[in-house]
Amino acid sequence: MENKLKRFKEILALLRKYEHALGIMYFDFETIVPNGARDDEGDILDFFSNEHFKLSHSDEIKGLIQDLYQNKDKISDPLDVKLVEIWYENYAKTKNITPELDLKMSNIYSRAYSNWLKAKEAKDYSLFKDSFKEVIDIQRVAVNLRENKLEKYYDNLLDDCEKGMLQEDLDPFFNELKVGLIELINKIKNSKHVIRRDFLNRNVPIYKQEAFSKYLLELNGYDFNRGALTTTEHPFTSDIAKNDARVTTHYHEDMVLSNIFSVIHEGGHAIFMQNERDEDYDHFINDEITNGMHESVSRFYENIVGRSKEYIHLIYPKFIETFDEFKDISERELYEAVNIVKPSLIRTEADEVTYGLHIIIRYEMEKMICNNEINVNDIPAMWNKLYKDYLGVGVPNDSLGVLQDVHWSSGFGYFPSYAIGNCYNAMYIKRMEKEIPFRSLLEKGDFTTINKWMKENVFIHANVLTPKEWIKELTGESLSPKAFLKYLNNKYKDIYQF
Amino acid sequence: MENKLKRFKEILALLRKYEHALGIMYFDFETIVPNGARDDEGDILDFFSNEHFKLSHSDEIKGLIQDLYQNKDKISDPLDVKLVEIWYENYAKTKNITPELDLKMSNIYSRAYSNWLKAKEAKDYSLFKDSFKEVIDIQRVAVNLRENKLEKYYDNLLDDCEKGMLQEDLDPFFNELKVGLIELINKIKNSKHVIRRDFLNRNVPIYKQEAFSKYLLELNGYDFNRGALTTTEHPFTSDIAKNDARVTTHYHEDMVLSNIFSVIHEGGHAIFMQNERDEDYDHFINDEITNGMHESVSRFYENIVGRSKEYIHLIYPKFIETFDEFKDISERELYEAVNIVKPSLIRTEADEVTYGLHIIIRYEMEKMICNNEINVNDIPAMWNKLYKDYLGVGVPNDSLGVLQDVHWSSGFGYFPSYAIGNCYNAMYIKRMEKEIPFRSLLEKGDFTTINKWMKENVFIHANVLTPKEWIKELTGESLSPKAFLKYLNNKYKDIYQF
Repeated sequence: MENKLKRFKEILALLRKYEHALGIMYFDFETIVPNGARDDEGDILDFFSNEHFKLSHSDEIKGLIQDLYQNKDKISDPLDVKLVEIWYENYAKTKNITPELDLKMSNIYSRAYSNWLKAKEAKDYSLFKDSFKEVIDIQRVAVNLRENKLEKYYDNLLDDCEKGMLQEDLDPFFNELKVGLIELINKIKNSKHVIRRDFLNRNVPIYKQEAFSKYLLELNGYDFNRGALTTTEHPFTSDIAKNDARVTTHYHEDMVLSNIFSVIHEGGHAIFMQNERDEDYDHFINDEITNGMHESVSRFYENIVGRSKEYIHLIYPKFIETFDEFKDISERELYEAVNIVKPSLIRTEADEVTYGLHIIIRYEMEKMICNNEINVNDIPAMWNKLYKDYLGVGVPNDSLGVLQDVHWSSGFGYFPSYAIGNCYNAMYIKRMEKEIPFRSLLEKGDFTTINKWMKENVFIHANVLTPKEWIKELTGESLSPKAFLKYLNNKYKDIYQF
Repeated sequence: MENKLKRFKEILALLRKYEHALGIMYFDFETIVPNGARDDEGDILDFFSNEHFKLSHSDEIKGLIQDLYQNKDKISDPLDVKLVEIWYENYAKTKNITPELDLKMSNIYSRAYSNWLKAKEAKDYSLFKDSFKEVIDIQRVAVNLRENKLEKYYDNLLDDCEKGMLQEDLDPFFNELKVGLIELINKIKNSKHVIRRDFLNRNVPIYKQEAFSKYLLELNGYDFNRGALTTTEHPFTSDIAKNDARVTTHYHEDMVLSNIFSVIHEGGHAIFMQNERDEDYDHFINDEITNGMHESVSRFYENIVGRSKEYIHLIYPKFIETFDEFKDISERELYEAVNIVKPSLIRTEADEVTYGLHIIIRYEMEKMICNNEINVNDIPAMWNKLYKDYLGVGVPNDSLGVLQDVHWSSGFGYFPSYAIGNCYNAMYIKRMEKEIPFRSLLEKGDFTTINKWMKENVFIHANVLTPKEWIKELTGESLSPKAFLKYLNNKYKDIYQF
């Protein structure tokens, strides 16, 4: 077994080289490639992804995984056992996918992405519809080829994104969250308090926003020696290599706050990446953090930290020093402005309170689509109906509606993790507040202590535990929206004075 | 043969995918990779370069090249014949290099680059010396393995960079150039005319320089739809793919002119790349332009265009509008300032006149090194002596001397092409001026007509002709410094009033 494990890790080291190269190419594709070279570069990405697929699905590696799994009791290091289990499970998911099918899938997803861009630009769902249908169908084909398929089709997709969190967990979770959010939104609607918002769209030159973004990332503990900040159309964070976690953003001259919170959010993902355990990396278990865990951290920095009274107090002097455009705004006005609650059309611009409803709409629609309860033609109408029902807003066109997010051009299952993430972090900050003086550390800007706590508690086992095990270990409890609803009610009571 | 040619081109198409990917990775390495990830990314580049090497030196491709070359009279398309000849020749150069030796070479060059950086930073040649010795030795090992080795060792290296231009051509060329330049420099030294230079180091924020750089590139005809402009330590242009020729620059707040001419120079390379013939690309002959040809074009845009009276007249209004820091400078003062002649230490910052002497020093030193006439320990002293003898300047430390250029960390042969390029373009603008009203087009900013002439005459056959054939076709003459010396004398007579 010793030799087989050694050989297995040699192949993983080779795969890591391809992943590193693909990470660089993907980053280039999203940040700098000129329009005229986009298609060619997309082809290169597909080609090398397929080379990676072939290497990771060779007969040799399949044999090794099977052997190692059957003899895992003979492996001494528990991290190696974990590694073998992870690969065995993934292998059962994909072993029947041929390289040809893999390439076909890549092509469908690339085409869907490109048609989604066109449709969004033209505000016309019909330009995306056929590609969308292909995505829906090919994802089903791939799931049906799994050896370890779960009974309910949608559960497979949920499990891919947030291992073990299935419909039977999420249905009651989202129901409770929905009721709580609607109740809170009604309280806020009835509040008489008026938040000043006349300054929100003042123009600010981009070079000032660049300087401020860098300040925020450094303040929060992001290490620029192992990362970079650059621009893109739709911000993301890229885990390119062990010492290379890059943040991207999009500057708008007239939306300075949008960039600030996007940078803090993506910076949160990157801080998580920069603080994973070296042991996990050395054992090749460095890709197992779920989306929900990741969003819990990014939204911890964005909301619990970034939109807190203490953090606004901390950054306010630098804020008005950098942006003299805002020098007439008081600290309290800034704090309230970053916490305006208002039902709206766009998920990524939604506030902390209404955000959950955007996710619930997507969760309910994904269920309908995966259960074949809705025809692809009827998806925009259903979208618009749910936005009216849950958020009370009318959708004027598809770009502001069903086409707003990129996610569905590569399939289903991701959205729930955003809402799950919000609830995880509300659960673990309760413990954090008991163990360290979080609020006063925040006000002082002592991110060394805060990030140390995050590293030692939140980050430490994220690669090796399932979400259910992880949140239990971390908080003693199972996933629930209660702490999150309590956190929101406390915070917004003060802001909206109800 | 038809089928063999087809199969050969299939392999070339595959190699092109690797080159595209390597282009992206190399660009990333030079523009954005964080310091903490530099070594890992260097390893990835070496790994995929080596994969490319293996693919391009497989038994199959070797067999195909041999077969096709022996039967080239049966190939109908002359561009295909050319392609086979190019590959046959390169194959004779590298067929005896094993993948292991290729990887060893990559590692030596990577280490040399990294030690060069450290040595330059520390101003200490001794930190580079051992790596430099390794480079000198391994380059000789590789040349000795060639089947088509040229008798004089240095000729092989010159031939790699500027095919067919050997010592027997370059010795008289450089001698004539040296005499002419020293004569002109003496005239300028004796001139009583004083050029205003108090404003040269005024501070200008980088965002203004960014805007102006974009304006210049667009003005000169660079197509941003098939390229990009970004920053790096040592500016370069990257030919990543057919529709992806990227320009890089380095902004200094107190050296606004340095960025302007660097951008025009690199933009010139990129305009050349963007205007190669589609036929050459389709036949996979798109990598055959020599360094001398390329430098002739980049320095055409930088000097003949960029430092001309007409171009300064054209950009002056935008210049003072963008940089209000310079609003007290007249058009004539700006024109004179960009043409100050002054012997100095750094090649890349040298003026048009003294530049050639920097190259001649390097050429003479490369000859000594390649002929084993100098020990690696004695190189800095010789460098300093030649700078004193030819340029009259004392070298205070190695960073401002022998360590200033990156080139020697990857071997010898490149420098002469810079000087050759200057002389090529002085030769072909004589013809251009006969065929189109170059000076008045320039003053009007009509780059459409200028670039069309360049495309139809200078660019068109650059991939398929040797430099000697190309300059003969283009000008009816052979390489000579006469036109260049005449151009310089005319121009600087006006500026320095001698």
